[in-house]
Amino acid sequence: MSSSKTPINVAILGATGRVGQELIKVLEERKFPVKEFRALASARSKDSKVMFNGKEYSVQEPSEEAFKGIDLVLASAGADISEKLAPLAVKQGACVIDNSNAFRMDPSVPLVVPEVNGEALKQHKGIIANPNCSTAQLVVVLKPLHDAAGLKRVIVSTYQSVSGAGKEAMEELELQTKAISNGGEYKPQVFQHQIAYNLIPHIDKFLPNGYTKEEMKVVQETQKILGLSDLPVTCTAVRVPVVISHSESVLVELEKELSPEKAQDILAKSPAVEVVDNPSEALYPTPLEAAGKDPVYVGRIRVDTSSKNGLNMWVVADNLRIGAALNAVRIAEYMLEHNLIRSMVNA
Amino acid sequence: MSSSKTPINVAILGATGRVGQELIKVLEERKFPVKEFRALASARSKDSKVMFNGKEYSVQEPSEEAFKGIDLVLASAGADISEKLAPLAVKQGACVIDNSNAFRMDPSVPLVVPEVNGEALKQHKGIIANPNCSTAQLVVVLKPLHDAAGLKRVIVSTYQSVSGAGKEAMEELELQTKAISNGGEYKPQVFQHQIAYNLIPHIDKFLPNGYTKEEMKVVQETQKILGLSDLPVTCTAVRVPVVISHSESVLVELEKELSPEKAQDILAKSPAVEVVDNPSEALYPTPLEAAGKDPVYVGRIRVDTSSKNGLNMWVVADNLRIGAALNAVRIAEYMLEHNLIRSMVNA
Repeated sequence: MSSSKTPINVAILGATGRVGQELIKVLEERKFPVKEFRALASARSKDSKVMFNGKEYSVQEPSEEAFKGIDLVLASAGADISEKLAPLAVKQGACVIDNSNAFRMDPSVPLVVPEVNGEALKQHKGIIANPNCSTAQLVVVLKPLHDAAGLKRVIVSTYQSVSGAGKEAMEELELQTKAISNGGEYKPQVFQHQIAYNLIPHIDKFLPNGYTKEEMKVVQETQKILGLSDLPVTCTAVRVPVVISHSESVLVELEKELSPEKAQDILAKSPAVEVVDNPSEALYPTPLEAAGKDPVYVGRIRVDTSSKNGLNMWVVADNLRIGAALNAVRIAEYMLEHNLIRSMVNA
Repeated sequence: MSSSKTPINVAILGATGRVGQELIKVLEERKFPVKEFRALASARSKDSKVMFNGKEYSVQEPSEEAFKGIDLVLASAGADISEKLAPLAVKQGACVIDNSNAFRMDPSVPLVVPEVNGEALKQHKGIIANPNCSTAQLVVVLKPLHDAAGLKRVIVSTYQSVSGAGKEAMEELELQTKAISNGGEYKPQVFQHQIAYNLIPHIDKFLPNGYTKEEMKVVQETQKILGLSDLPVTCTAVRVPVVISHSESVLVELEKELSPEKAQDILAKSPAVEVVDNPSEALYPTPLEAAGKDPVYVGRIRVDTSSKNGLNMWVVADNLRIGAALNAVRIAEYMLEHNLIRSMVNA
């Protein structure tokens, strides 16, 4: 019997949030082998209930006690909460796959997209970091291109949906759009400026170098996941009035020449990628069509008009799935498959 | 008396369209010296009336006859109509400032943004081309940077509003958003795909090299206006659900080092540019704030993390103004000021 079938005890930390809900959906869809299920969320959600596999679960407040007997914690409750609680869960013998940025750049914590660097999971010490959503979909495309022709430089401009900022942000876009459509107004609460019919080039906090944290995550996490610490990467991250899916205009400069046709072939072979690239039929990825789906979609692949061996492309994926819940569950599946769940190792 | 005060006879070709209406507004705002005014538009708009300086004008169908006595035609009725009618207007002694792409790459036609290459107007032979909207706002920012530190390469990803696609496109975004907000649907008619809550990486037709015409306009028109025919430029052009103003994520590589502070200073001195760049106060350009205004707004200026002497920045402008009507009227003002209106020269 494959170890991947051995059911384990799973807790979701942040179970009532947008990504928490998506985690539950993905566990169900993929029939992840769950023995005991626990839903954890902040005091604010104490009286909520969540459904998992047709059964209702009361939401519990997280504590060291609440992690007892749990093999795997899927955490998506923000960096502050992860920083405090992940070590407690590990102390109780659980592995934590953390969706926040609390541990991503910690050299002792693997930062993993299984299709790209699953091997890194073998070094884990209890906590595993799930990359930023913009990074996850990017590295899935960069890796096969790097293997084929050697990455020299990566330039990214993002078009990020509001769901990356949580449930309240999605509501704000919806209600604000409605209000404006009806000639009214709706003051920004989640976002710094109006997001309906607008763009905001500001995601996460600003750093002293003029970049946002979001932009520097793309730079640093891409380098870490690809194991290319000196790879030149730059990013401009922009919030757009789209509900789900992040899109990216990506320019890659390569060591060797790679034709768009060859790049299409290489990417089409990657199990995590789907190439949608037929301009004559107006076929290319759009965020609307990517929403709710698993692949990272790539299209508009063409020779860069401004460099030798450069390719421009357009990369779109559901940020709640590949960028968060799906990647976290894929990490868990890889760990099960390779006997890397801590409690199993200790047993 | 300055020649710039001498009133001339002006016709607007495409007077009922989105840019035509904006042309009228800009002529009024800037008190452009109009002696006789004529509104021309296709048979479809024959029974319409337009207002100019508080007076109502019947819309006439354009013909060689209709250009008689006109000194200046401001044309914004599409490339096919311009190709047919502009030579007829010139034959009648008028100058034509054409907003379509019919003549932009014609070596005998000046392609002009007055703040950048007004001098080129001195070579005109009757027709003057107004650049593509995405290009106009870009070159206004590139020129001072080039003068200060030498442009080596330009990489652009655009976030273009629906008004760039005309009045019907604006209506489609509005009605489609309303329908979807109310749980209904609205089939795309102007755009290839749903634009409400979505992105479409497809503006104008696709070319054999995989780029859209819009993207190659940015490449070629930028080279022509700056007089740098070998400048490496690349572009990805994307339609976003914003009503007015185009935004651009721009990476410039420079010959010489230029600090973001110095770049701010240089750009702030340009009369056509306004620097909005104070991240700590969440101040940067947004399309919503740029709409209806004259400057090209620049912010998020920072050192590129992927090249030597590179700068990333965020450029936003009202595409109907700087990208169309305002630039056309500024060309007309420059021509008046320098006695370059043909009928005046011939007189």
